[in-house]
Amino acid sequence: MSMMNLNKLIKPSTVAIVGASESAGFGGDTTKNYLKFSENLDKLYLINPKRETIFGHKAYKSLLEVEGDIDLVIICTPQSTIIPLLREASEKNCGGAVVFASGYSEVGEEGRIKQQELIEEADRLGIAVMGPNCAGFANYINGIFAFAFLVEERERKGNIGFISQSGQIILSGLDSPNMGFSYCISSGNSCNVKVEDYLDFLVDDEDTKVVAAYMEGVTKPAQLIETLKKAANKKKPIIILKTGKSDKSQQLAASHTGSLSGSDKVLRAVFKHYGVIEADDLEELCGAAAAFSWIDKLPEGGKTVFMNVSGGEAGVTADLADEFGIELAEYKQETKEYLMSLLPEYGSVNNPFDMTAGIGYNTPVLCEAIRTISKDENVDAICLAYTITPEIWDDTIAHMVEAVKITREEGNIKPVFWMPFIEHTRHLESANTLKDAGVPLLPTGKYACEIMKKIFDFSVFEFEDLGAAIPENVHNNTFALSEYESLCYLRDKGVNVPAMEVALTPEEAVVKAESLSYPLSVKVNSRDIMHKSDVGGVKLNIKNEEGLNKAFEDIIDSCSSKVPGAKIEGVLLKPMLEPGVEMIIGVNNDKDFGPTIMIGMGGVFVELFKDVQLSPAPLTKSKAMSMIQKLKAYPLLNGYRGSKVCNTDALAELLVKISEVAANGKDTIKEMDINPVFVTEKGVSIADGLLIVYED
Amino acid sequence: MSMMNLNKLIKPSTVAIVGASESAGFGGDTTKNYLKFSENLDKLYLINPKRETIFGHKAYKSLLEVEGDIDLVIICTPQSTIIPLLREASEKNCGGAVVFASGYSEVGEEGRIKQQELIEEADRLGIAVMGPNCAGFANYINGIFAFAFLVEERERKGNIGFISQSGQIILSGLDSPNMGFSYCISSGNSCNVKVEDYLDFLVDDEDTKVVAAYMEGVTKPAQLIETLKKAANKKKPIIILKTGKSDKSQQLAASHTGSLSGSDKVLRAVFKHYGVIEADDLEELCGAAAAFSWIDKLPEGGKTVFMNVSGGEAGVTADLADEFGIELAEYKQETKEYLMSLLPEYGSVNNPFDMTAGIGYNTPVLCEAIRTISKDENVDAICLAYTITPEIWDDTIAHMVEAVKITREEGNIKPVFWMPFIEHTRHLESANTLKDAGVPLLPTGKYACEIMKKIFDFSVFEFEDLGAAIPENVHNNTFALSEYESLCYLRDKGVNVPAMEVALTPEEAVVKAESLSYPLSVKVNSRDIMHKSDVGGVKLNIKNEEGLNKAFEDIIDSCSSKVPGAKIEGVLLKPMLEPGVEMIIGVNNDKDFGPTIMIGMGGVFVELFKDVQLSPAPLTKSKAMSMIQKLKAYPLLNGYRGSKVCNTDALAELLVKISEVAANGKDTIKEMDINPVFVTEKGVSIADGLLIVYED
Repeated sequence: MSMMNLNKLIKPSTVAIVGASESAGFGGDTTKNYLKFSENLDKLYLINPKRETIFGHKAYKSLLEVEGDIDLVIICTPQSTIIPLLREASEKNCGGAVVFASGYSEVGEEGRIKQQELIEEADRLGIAVMGPNCAGFANYINGIFAFAFLVEERERKGNIGFISQSGQIILSGLDSPNMGFSYCISSGNSCNVKVEDYLDFLVDDEDTKVVAAYMEGVTKPAQLIETLKKAANKKKPIIILKTGKSDKSQQLAASHTGSLSGSDKVLRAVFKHYGVIEADDLEELCGAAAAFSWIDKLPEGGKTVFMNVSGGEAGVTADLADEFGIELAEYKQETKEYLMSLLPEYGSVNNPFDMTAGIGYNTPVLCEAIRTISKDENVDAICLAYTITPEIWDDTIAHMVEAVKITREEGNIKPVFWMPFIEHTRHLESANTLKDAGVPLLPTGKYACEIMKKIFDFSVFEFEDLGAAIPENVHNNTFALSEYESLCYLRDKGVNVPAMEVALTPEEAVVKAESLSYPLSVKVNSRDIMHKSDVGGVKLNIKNEEGLNKAFEDIIDSCSSKVPGAKIEGVLLKPMLEPGVEMIIGVNNDKDFGPTIMIGMGGVFVELFKDVQLSPAPLTKSKAMSMIQKLKAYPLLNGYRGSKVCNTDALAELLVKISEVAANGKDTIKEMDINPVFVTEKGVSIADGLLIVYED
Repeated sequence: MSMMNLNKLIKPSTVAIVGASESAGFGGDTTKNYLKFSENLDKLYLINPKRETIFGHKAYKSLLEVEGDIDLVIICTPQSTIIPLLREASEKNCGGAVVFASGYSEVGEEGRIKQQELIEEADRLGIAVMGPNCAGFANYINGIFAFAFLVEERERKGNIGFISQSGQIILSGLDSPNMGFSYCISSGNSCNVKVEDYLDFLVDDEDTKVVAAYMEGVTKPAQLIETLKKAANKKKPIIILKTGKSDKSQQLAASHTGSLSGSDKVLRAVFKHYGVIEADDLEELCGAAAAFSWIDKLPEGGKTVFMNVSGGEAGVTADLADEFGIELAEYKQETKEYLMSLLPEYGSVNNPFDMTAGIGYNTPVLCEAIRTISKDENVDAICLAYTITPEIWDDTIAHMVEAVKITREEGNIKPVFWMPFIEHTRHLESANTLKDAGVPLLPTGKYACEIMKKIFDFSVFEFEDLGAAIPENVHNNTFALSEYESLCYLRDKGVNVPAMEVALTPEEAVVKAESLSYPLSVKVNSRDIMHKSDVGGVKLNIKNEEGLNKAFEDIIDSCSSKVPGAKIEGVLLKPMLEPGVEMIIGVNNDKDFGPTIMIGMGGVFVELFKDVQLSPAPLTKSKAMSMIQKLKAYPLLNGYRGSKVCNTDALAELLVKISEVAANGKDTIKEMDINPVFVTEKGVSIADGLLIVYED
């Protein structure tokens, strides 16, 4: 599916509302909204065959009665009318339609068929359709309000491009008091325009500073990657709330808009790779979007000074910063001394900094404190942590808001955030002052810290583009290679694997063992036996010829009897490896997003503690090293309690190499399980490997 | 310090404001507040020698001019006047004073001396002092408003007793729109009335349904325990926000109110033991307090049905429930069928339940849905998850609020919660309807789920009172017992320890080894050597006499040369134990709260993954078992990946036994480190033990 041109849909010059009306319902509410909020009504045509006028505006009998072109039709009438209307619209050179009607893919098989018909007809006519089953959109840049739910008047123009697959979530977003929008789009069932298309539109759009999206699934993975890459390269923040972390929400998404959610973990690894900011819920989505929208410059790092006017709240702030991993800046000595000079005798200069009334209640002194802290090169950002309490208007708030405004207007002040401790949005005057000063007013404590942390991480995020490895063909059937074949495959691709030999007879084993060195591991060699130990197919630490002969026979006997049909091709001989820390490297090749590489330690750490790191392949060395270092078990590789320091450099190189094999093998390899890899102070060695490959 | 009677302080019959005035400042603001918000002004005396009247009320020259008794004096004048005023007040049989003045322990050593003088004089006069350096209090039950900061008029009466060591946090609390108070108390520096005294007052108080507190530290641990026990026995919820999780906030608390924070982890284990609900920040403190305050009956468990009117929000809800560990109820078949009959054809009955417009937009049908779900015995609670959007008032909200009101008023409806997705407090009408219906209106997503989870846990919490083991004497110096002495101590107290012998010569070792069985472990026997392995003091797996002789000599030689001054008393002989899963049991005896017992697995799990469980000693068997089962590493004891199922029953019994030894030894034992304990399918065996005991 090629990318749709959305200009006529979202930025139309001429608009018709079909089913316009004065009564409640889609037709009436949409008409009221349009007339109330849209900037230019000259090129608006209201269509209703039963009316002469609607709210004093001329009503047309049909689209065909309108003279000249119609870029966009907003269709408020039921399902059965949609396709005929699109055909009429097409005669007016229409390029976009908003369809509110429901009864499509959200209602089961019959609806899915109707939606398919709609898609085909819309594609044939070249009309980009928003919906069906959507709430419409608001374009605050050109003043076009094609939205089906009544909204109260308030300034909502801003620079957030907001897209949602759920109409309800668009309503919540519109009501969120700190959000200002460039575009607000309810994609509904997404027939021939997908969420990915809107995302791409907003990433390109110059009026949009930050993109916020609620998504249930992905249907155009390759296009999504291109859009995310574009955003990463221009460092435009994209914040996504995607359901599907839990099994339950995956089921719901499947039944709701019929989105195929694919592997949720893979998608989140992709998001991370491209610097996408993930939100866990709506408050975080809206709060983070508003923060990115208000801030005029990203901080250069995450070293933060928190300023409080209460020892108690300073303590609460310290615990929050610790919980959310926000780094507390260490003042330079001169900063500390100067701040001390501003404080009353009993005060002390900490971070979080209890400014006391001496600073907090005195605008000029507070300005001085902010300037001084901002000048400190150990500081990247400042956060004023104080609740805006409209019903208990203590002067402190006025002083603080004023000081922030003054210092920010002077310029050269590092990014400042405002964190309240209880819900804060009721005092619009303070909020507006802070907004004008480019100071995000965050949601309360936990959300605030989570959002600041995400902004800091985004600020220092550096996108490394090695190219995505997206499979080009659809593959269905797979089969497993034997360990020998798997290791040979890796060896052929330049991965260092230990010496090994296959022997079909005991005699051959004895001969081949000479080129290896005892003690040996001996394993059954068969594609058909994946769990070799379970069927007596593994003998370790074989020390001599006698042992080898016995091992050979035992293995063949046991496996032949326990897996009757298996095709057994002798045994695989390998020298016993020097044991080390056991790591697991895995690859899973997602049909949409290609191979994701995983690293973790041993079985328990991976399985019980879920201590793994994931990333799309291929990797850079620095990314590989950072994955290793982010493991909670990392100290076990790094001299924990006097143990030896393992060669993590070699491990990172192996990880890079495997990621390259995976990326190059995107149309060949479905899965890799390199498990275990032994890491010692000298280097790494692969003790076992299993590849599952595509048949075709 | 005995418990103060707070009645004259908090529930006075006669009140004097000293320093009453009409101008801004403590005197004026307190007077204005008192006149505006207090119920009975007949027994109020305004004291100001310079005025005849204040706001039309008679002004007295001094306290002594007032006829009759004065229960409470609210002192708005500076530090230097306080003690003389208390002496005057005492002549009027005064029993309580509120002191706003600062300049005490919060400003360093000089202030601490002044505070000590104040304490001594107040104690001598029998006056309970709130403050100094406090914001005062509001008693909404008797209508007494002794508060120093101007507050706007709003109905704030309710059943939450709120105490804070920080004045700023009291202001935030008062402004929190969902909180209704019985008492709101700013304890300030807590001179002769401590936070623990207010807590006790509120736990006893019948007008207080839920207690919420911000605390920085504990000064009366034994009394706190008694109060918590009382609350646990009557199941009155206590919610505490205590700073001190991070090192930084511990430092701040020490410098702020000079509270000694003791061991933060111990205090949190104590909280957990008594069912105290911990809040992580102010929003959670206020949100949880409001929820407990509004709900009229606790749920019987945590099996919840979430009701949405959006597939998207249902998905977000599912992920939130999963993240916060809220159990999604499984409907009974008949519930499911009935709900299905209420839905349009395309709907489906899930949990979270996307009700669709068919139910959500129709009050009578929604009532039926709520009744049906509530009747299902698999359901403990219902949560309506929908944002109250005042600027986009869609009818759904009205339908939902109305349906909740109707069904709750009928009675017999299980507890219902309301979770918005974005900040919600601006629509007071809906909030009040929900409040009247006993339906908590929670903060947004993450806070809401965290709070519900805490309410569910509290609902099923069963307090098991084995008595607290609080040390009776102050102990300072400690010393370490040798492994032999430690194990003997445990054996004497009835703990099963492996056979062992001490031998002073190689010959004695050989003889004593006969009563044990080879292979043996041989370790240096000395109080002075704690890290025996580091100095060559341990030889394992000694198989015969020859080996034993050599081990004896090697150990004595090595230890004598490496720890020259150590007093060595031969070696400790023990049979090698059957290896098993390695656990650690530890005890730390807190000077305030007594012994806390810890269990975790191996070194890595405890140290890197912090996978430990803590509880005050002594333990019941069920508590011990639950601690073991809550370990993330628990599957490793329970047949993980085909390993043997360990005897966790025996482990729980050992844990109980050790906890009893610790509790009985509260004036003897400072620390125990039983590490490792081997657990096999047969039972447990202690491989090493170290006790640190008090000298006196």
